[in-house]
Amino acid sequence: MKIAVVGTGAVGQVMSKRLSELGHRVFMGTRNVEQSRKRKESDAWGTPGIGSWIEDHPNIDLVTFKEAAEKGEDLLIFGISGMAALDALDQIGKDLLRDKIMIDISNPLDFSKGFPPSLSLCNTESLGEKIQNSYPDLKVVKTLNSISSPIMANPKLIEGDHVVFLCGNDLNAKAKVSTLLQSLGWKQDNIIDLGDITNARGTEMLLPLWIRLMGKYQSPMFNINVVKAPVLSPGA
Amino acid sequence: MKIAVVGTGAVGQVMSKRLSELGHRVFMGTRNVEQSRKRKESDAWGTPGIGSWIEDHPNIDLVTFKEAAEKGEDLLIFGISGMAALDALDQIGKDLLRDKIMIDISNPLDFSKGFPPSLSLCNTESLGEKIQNSYPDLKVVKTLNSISSPIMANPKLIEGDHVVFLCGNDLNAKAKVSTLLQSLGWKQDNIIDLGDITNARGTEMLLPLWIRLMGKYQSPMFNINVVKAPVLSPGA
Repeated sequence: MKIAVVGTGAVGQVMSKRLSELGHRVFMGTRNVEQSRKRKESDAWGTPGIGSWIEDHPNIDLVTFKEAAEKGEDLLIFGISGMAALDALDQIGKDLLRDKIMIDISNPLDFSKGFPPSLSLCNTESLGEKIQNSYPDLKVVKTLNSISSPIMANPKLIEGDHVVFLCGNDLNAKAKVSTLLQSLGWKQDNIIDLGDITNARGTEMLLPLWIRLMGKYQSPMFNINVVKAPVLSPGA
Repeated sequence: MKIAVVGTGAVGQVMSKRLSELGHRVFMGTRNVEQSRKRKESDAWGTPGIGSWIEDHPNIDLVTFKEAAEKGEDLLIFGISGMAALDALDQIGKDLLRDKIMIDISNPLDFSKGFPPSLSLCNTESLGEKIQNSYPDLKVVKTLNSISSPIMANPKLIEGDHVVFLCGNDLNAKAKVSTLLQSLGWKQDNIIDLGDITNARGTEMLLPLWIRLMGKYQSPMFNINVVKAPVLSPGA
């Protein structure tokens, strides 16, 4: 497929690399290509500056948000910081987003008051819903947002079962995204479809716990699994 | 131990029964004892009316909130609806709550706009913190709130590993609660201490996802596990 990856941080880098290795043509979108090429320093989390990273990955094109969405015509992967999400979509514009399938990995994390972050919206709304409502013709599939970037792209880094949640309003879009997740290594039984996009409230609100677990383990290399009793009856 | 259980719903019933079976003396607190004794009908979830239930469990005393806290002097288990939580504590009063260890299982679920509920407070606060801040001399340990009542009282209903989170400001209180959890069947390695009471934000905000999973499975008989990569380094 021709895939647009919006965002040049850890999520954008890991997903672009993995999808490229799987044979897809990847167009990575950034706000300002020239400035991005100059960013050579790694950040506090050890994520390479996009300028160095793109030099090491010559088969991936670094272009503007809009050009990425134009050229990555088959799928848009949205892995940008939640606070920058709506502005990035605005730069792409409604025309290019019409009928597009978008994997929304973004989280509305607000670091303005330090660590741990709070959510800039939650509870009776979610970033997934806000994006879907802002672009009704976009087919938003919220998924992977509760998983650290190395594991989202390669779930087999963790042995045994662990899950990825998925939600969205368009059944065909969800089926296509599920197929892509399986190509990354996610077992079909471990992809949990929660229903429509309002369920993004549930998966985005998992982040405050996720962040605390990351702090406890001093590592993002974990995920959660859902385990069931042999008989799913409510009987006490 | 002499244990007060505040709340007469599913959580109160299941915990009272289990603790009584383990040899503890249980005093179950309710707002109005006379009215509670008249409630014989099961609710929509199949939980028996407390009036019938208490007749079937003659070794458990049904008393007022205040009397329960007086007689259950060693530990207070708080399993009441989140919306009624602060009022119940007010009825017990500051004097009886001083230096008491409280296991807070309550969640700030707001069903006023139907199902699924939202949280009446979250994100930059939590019910656990609100209770702790309202009663600074109470030793609040938030735990079990992300787990359905049958499983909290008997985790072996689910085979294999699955976790219970715990947080609070008092280390001795957390150690005592951890011992109690282990007596219920929780493996020590599966009790995850997240730190101080502000971490209740993380575990209370898990509820929106939990509720959606319950809707999907049409059963509360599941729990989550945290699974880690063999090496907890961040390397992609």
